[in-house]
Amino acid sequence: MKVSIYGAGRVGISVAFSLLHYGIVDELVIVDIDKNRAEGEALDLLHASAVFKYCNIYAGKPEDTKDSDFIIITAGRAQRPGETRLELLADNVRIIKEISENIVRYSKDSLVINITNPVDVLTYFIWKFSGLHSSKVFGTGTTLDTARLRALLAKHLDISPASIHAYVIGEHGDSEFIPLSNAMVGGVPLTDFCEKCEKKAGDTIPCISFEKIANEVKTAAYKIIEKKGATNLAIGAVTAKLIDSIWKNERRVWTPSVYIEDVYIGYPAVLGRKGVEKVMHLTLEKDEQEKLEYSKAVIRRAIKEIEAAMLI
Amino acid sequence: MKVSIYGAGRVGISVAFSLLHYGIVDELVIVDIDKNRAEGEALDLLHASAVFKYCNIYAGKPEDTKDSDFIIITAGRAQRPGETRLELLADNVRIIKEISENIVRYSKDSLVINITNPVDVLTYFIWKFSGLHSSKVFGTGTTLDTARLRALLAKHLDISPASIHAYVIGEHGDSEFIPLSNAMVGGVPLTDFCEKCEKKAGDTIPCISFEKIANEVKTAAYKIIEKKGATNLAIGAVTAKLIDSIWKNERRVWTPSVYIEDVYIGYPAVLGRKGVEKVMHLTLEKDEQEKLEYSKAVIRRAIKEIEAAMLI
Amino acid sequence: MKVSIYGAGRVGISVAFSLLHYGIVDELVIVDIDKNRAEGEALDLLHASAVFKYCNIYAGKPEDTKDSDFIIITAGRAQRPGETRLELLADNVRIIKEISENIVRYSKDSLVINITNPVDVLTYFIWKFSGLHSSKVFGTGTTLDTARLRALLAKHLDISPASIHAYVIGEHGDSEFIPLSNAMVGGVPLTDFCEKCEKKAGDTIPCISFEKIANEVKTAAYKIIEKKGATNLAIGAVTAKLIDSIWKNERRVWTPSVYIEDVYIGYPAVLGRKGVEKVMHLTLEKDEQEKLEYSKAVIRRAIKEIEAAMLI
Amino acid sequence: MKVSIYGAGRVGISVAFSLLHYGIVDELVIVDIDKNRAEGEALDLLHASAVFKYCNIYAGKPEDTKDSDFIIITAGRAQRPGETRLELLADNVRIIKEISENIVRYSKDSLVINITNPVDVLTYFIWKFSGLHSSKVFGTGTTLDTARLRALLAKHLDISPASIHAYVIGEHGDSEFIPLSNAMVGGVPLTDFCEKCEKKAGDTIPCISFEKIANEVKTAAYKIIEKKGATNLAIGAVTAKLIDSIWKNERRVWTPSVYIEDVYIGYPAVLGRKGVEKVMHLTLEKDEQEKLEYSKAVIRRAIKEIEAAMLI
Ligand SMILES: NC(=O)c1ccc[n+]([C@@H]2O[C@H](COP(=O)([O-])OP(=O)(O)OC[C@H]3O[C@@H](n4cnc5c(N)ncnc54)[C@H](O)[C@@H]3O)[C@@H](O)[C@H]2O)c1
Ligand SMILES: NC(=O)c1ccc[n+]([C@@H]2O[C@H](COP(=O)([O-])OP(=O)(O)OC[C@H]3O[C@@H](n4cnc5c(N)ncnc54)[C@H](O)[C@@H]3O)[C@@H](O)[C@H]2O)c1
Ligand SMILES: NC(=O)c1ccc[n+]([C@@H]2O[C@H](COP(=O)([O-])OP(=O)(O)OC[C@H]3O[C@@H](n4cnc5c(N)ncnc54)[C@H](O)[C@@H]3O)[C@@H](O)[C@H]2O)c1
Ligand SMILES: NC(=O)c1ccc[n+]([C@@H]2O[C@H](COP(=O)([O-])OP(=O)(O)OC[C@H]3O[C@@H](n4cnc5c(N)ncnc54)[C@H](O)[C@@H]3O)[C@@H](O)[C@H]2O)c1
Repeated sequence: MKVSIYGAGRVGISVAFSLLHYGIVDELVIVDIDKNRAEGEALDLLHASAVFKYCNIYAGKPEDTKDSDFIIITAGRAQRPGETRLELLADNVRIIKEISENIVRYSKDSLVINITNPVDVLTYFIWKFSGLHSSKVFGTGTTLDTARLRALLAKHLDISPASIHAYVIGEHGDSEFIPLSNAMVGGVPLTDFCEKCEKKAGDTIPCISFEKIANEVKTAAYKIIEKKGATNLAIGAVTAKLIDSIWKNERRVWTPSVYIEDVYIGYPAVLGRKGVEKVMHLTLEKDEQEKLEYSKAVIRRAIKEIEAAMLI
Repeated sequence: MKVSIYGAGRVGISVAFSLLHYGIVDELVIVDIDKNRAEGEALDLLHASAVFKYCNIYAGKPEDTKDSDFIIITAGRAQRPGETRLELLADNVRIIKEISENIVRYSKDSLVINITNPVDVLTYFIWKFSGLHSSKVFGTGTTLDTARLRALLAKHLDISPASIHAYVIGEHGDSEFIPLSNAMVGGVPLTDFCEKCEKKAGDTIPCISFEKIANEVKTAAYKIIEKKGATNLAIGAVTAKLIDSIWKNERRVWTPSVYIEDVYIGYPAVLGRKGVEKVMHLTLEKDEQEKLEYSKAVIRRAIKEIEAAMLI
Repeated sequence: MKVSIYGAGRVGISVAFSLLHYGIVDELVIVDIDKNRAEGEALDLLHASAVFKYCNIYAGKPEDTKDSDFIIITAGRAQRPGETRLELLADNVRIIKEISENIVRYSKDSLVINITNPVDVLTYFIWKFSGLHSSKVFGTGTTLDTARLRALLAKHLDISPASIHAYVIGEHGDSEFIPLSNAMVGGVPLTDFCEKCEKKAGDTIPCISFEKIANEVKTAAYKIIEKKGATNLAIGAVTAKLIDSIWKNERRVWTPSVYIEDVYIGYPAVLGRKGVEKVMHLTLEKDEQEKLEYSKAVIRRAIKEIEAAMLI
Repeated sequence: MKVSIYGAGRVGISVAFSLLHYGIVDELVIVDIDKNRAEGEALDLLHASAVFKYCNIYAGKPEDTKDSDFIIITAGRAQRPGETRLELLADNVRIIKEISENIVRYSKDSLVINITNPVDVLTYFIWKFSGLHSSKVFGTGTTLDTARLRALLAKHLDISPASIHAYVIGEHGDSEFIPLSNAMVGGVPLTDFCEKCEKKAGDTIPCISFEKIANEVKTAAYKIIEKKGATNLAIGAVTAKLIDSIWKNERRVWTPSVYIEDVYIGYPAVLGRKGVEKVMHLTLEKDEQEKLEYSKAVIRRAIKEIEAAMLI
């Protein structure tokens, strides 16, 4: 199985490193405009592969990504002093445009997973530029946020994340939210769980602690970036797990950024060997539905803004 | 880590074989009154261990189970022509009584997992005879039935069992049932899922296919026993997974047979290194609550019957 | 990934059960002339799959094996009272002839792994009857015996089987042997290890205990069959591991039954996605070379005998 | 199971991240003088744990390491402009002295694995300062170099690293070497393998390519550091694997830095739950033995130098 990763930065390498642990990859190509960085990381990864399963890992050019099973996009550049958010964004759109063209040229049958931020917006443009079917192109969406939610709930409730069935959906950004009406813990609605829980923190539903947790999820990235400059480990772990699950054709429900109506947005969907195999139909409360629509609107606006600025 | 298994029959050996795949056991003792069988299986398992992680596996006597981390009970005998169900049961109670005494003698700090049928009733007596705390003694309960339900729903819905959050609870027997009001598929209530599902088979909720699946779960054992004489693989896989999960202290929610009020019954509970760490509080609809009470009554009656017959 | 197993007996089902633990199979077809048995086992396995990764498992006909990635052969029948070894063998050759024809008809691109005994002889005929390239057809050969050797040495030396590099080669039968000159333990020749080992049992090389272990390996099957009627767990574990390793394209060295000169025989070879990717060239001492030639002669004679008897 | 890691730098975090994949840790404490960095990494790791098994991960003080099963040391500081190698070393010795004292204070029953360079020398001082038994204190030694060798040979020979039994031993530094007389590939001495190999590059033994590979192993760190500033992934993967293997009590042979005569040096040894359970006795050729003695002398000299400089 062949995986190509665009971007040998903190995120790209975390994905690659985590992925090695599954022993499923035969060939791993790392493409970065910083050739040195890509070569150094590829060599370190190659040595690591001896621990799991030998994998042919090397720093490559776009043409080396030929016939990949998965293309992972983490390439991007950081903000420069004095430039506007839109200037940066326009530049990153140009980067993913070039990558999209290379995908179609060399690996049109691959599954494409985008991580570069703003993930929902850029996934939309990768889909647009590549012309691939929307089931073949998706972003990590709110899978990372969902993992964070489960980790924090697991810590709070003393229960395995595997038994906590709660999702973060919407834009991977400030407008994301937790449709609490659908959250369950081991067969118990989370709201009931809190009510009956010995640890109950207040008499409202959701309990006070839950609001705190939801807020921690939303601000997690800011906090980590403030402390260590970037987030990379959890997104690496989540993406590698996604790839393994898809490769094994598990058909689990995740919250990738998938195509709904006219935008890409984080929403429960089944991922399997064919890509996005099914988008779920959540049953949302009225206020949750409104939050979702609002989140779509945020993404829609960002797309339009770029289209206007870039005359796409 | 040390595991002792009472019973080298089809079930006991399936548990042992599956368990080897996790590479977590150092010493595995197999106790059976049929010494030859136990020795043959132990040798075959010992050879198999080379594939995973070497494990010291041997056929032993009760005293060899000393200081086990887990005691797994699968010992029992089959019905003899002409004897009544109660005669058989009384005999099996005598067998587990002896085993319970050995547990207290040699491994009073171990976790005890009972599989021998009728699993809820016998787990109750193991708890009674051993005098151990109820958090240390539990049965496989409806964990097998829950696995069956998820496999069949996975097949029907084309979605991973890992994303299907539905439980079978109650007696591991005819009075077990699925509290449908709590069943979710990837964040969607199963009842809604069926309603909106393209595969919808009828206009009732749950859809016709669901009734069929629920019935298949309940009759699965009969069907398999009719065709191959016994069921052993799925219960082996489920029990080994339980042991691995407990050993890693995952604290997942399972449906083991746990002590509730005055009986042992299959019910969602958190299992971790300390054993039964938390019994969940399900929010049941009225008819579901009635089914649960009925199921408890069935088990309670069986316990009383044995106590009467054996003058316990 | 699709696997088809011929034979739902003890061995076939052990392979299937072990294989589920790797979570790599999508479709598993079990073909047996005893339809009931195959159906019962398939259902039990299907339920077990919920614990690992859902797999579409069913009892099928040869046409259901279409486009398998792996075909595993464990079909055979046991000796009947009064019949000669050759009569039984002729019958089993007829069975594998039919299977070979079905392989070519439905799955000519699959890898074929034979387990049915006498494994070397029957693998030869499967290769002959199917007309497939010899890199696509191989037997389990002495992989089981090698696992047994490592388990027993591990027990004796208190060292992981993973650090014991010793092989059993030759006929999977009485003429098999251990080329001791090539056996290493963690970088130390086994012969030196014994000499310097605190546990040294004699002053000859190999030490007395080693002769005992070598003998235990050779007689393991007899002993287990005497005690439990058949051997199935270790061969199941070894074969499933083989399949996983091949599927992941690990290219490890095993001792499968591979085509050498004019026979199939257990010999170190590299197995990968393309099948037998390389047969090693052992450097043997003179007496070891003689043993190997003798073992080949034994297999060659058996092949000729059948060809004569069946007028192939 | 509890692990404490000193040093939240590139290496420490790679160890932690890789370790999460094994799902065996319950509590993970990260201690760094840079509190912010440790907190950021701990939070990112905590989120990642949701993908595997929830783990209580936090940035802590030495007292939080209480009762750890493993202490991993990666703390150190880089060279400052103008200072001598010995000045830096003396400072790092002071750092590990403080850590050693904390180990004895809070976790005297833990296994201690040192990674900080110069690994052999510092492991010696950790042993000295802590006063722990030498079986409880070891360094990663040449385990990383051995992994590199196997990865590169695997690439060259198209064979799994798992079937390549070759070791790098000696100082983790310029005087390390490969005792070629003991190197095997799937039962074939590496020297023979090269001779008979179709890829043979020259008529000397070892073939020309082998010399190149041996040299690549030795210079790997320099090359990677030149390209990406540090090496961290392979050492992270190797150390996490070590911890998993030890925790499972596999008793594999590795090449940790272990106490031999009067120094710590990379040498084949069996690692299990009790720590260094057995140091192997390699059978070396004369020139190999000389290389080993030279390597010991290099380490011995470094130890003396520090003892003199620090008046220890
Ligand atoms: N979706 C999520 O949940 C999530 C989480 C974390 C980070 N991210 C995003 O991931 C992206 C990468 O983050 P990072 O921390 O790895 O950044 P980074 O700066 O460490 O790495 C980015 C890499 O991309 C390379 N690059 C730039 N242009 C390229 C091109 N045309 N082709 C190939 N490579 C190119 C750079 O040289 C650099 O090595 C960012 O956009 C970040 O916001 C997303
Ligand atoms: N709970 C579940 O979900 C579930 C599923 C399947 C089977 N089961 C039950 O598991 C039990 C075992 O089934 P099986 O198919 O393995 O039966 P089996 O007859 O194959 O094996 C039972 C073994 O117990 C041994 N035994 C009898 N008395 C003993 C004693 N005093 N000490 C030690 N060993 C003793 C027998 O010699 C025999 O080897 C049965 O009660 C069966 O109903 C439970
Ligand atoms: N190579 C090894 O290392 C090794 C180890 C153990 C067993 N074996 C061999 O494996 C074989 C199977 O052993 P077992 O214990 O499973 O035997 P078994 O009798 O339990 O099972 C054999 C199965 O094959 C079925 N069968 C017969 N003819 C068939 C046909 N034409 N098509 C499909 N299925 C057919 C039978 O119905 C039966 O279910 C034997 O030959 C045994 O000697 C080999
Ligand atoms: N043995 C090997 O095979 C191997 C391989 C790679 C790296 N290394 C070594 O590992 C060490 C760490 O490398 P790195 O790249 O992670 O360095 P790094 O500079 O990224 O991290 C070192 C960390 O140690 C911390 N630290 C300093 N003093 C401390 C103290 N008293 N207590 C706690 N933390 C303290 C620093 O704040 C820093 O975060 C180096 O010595 C390096 O040479 C060894």
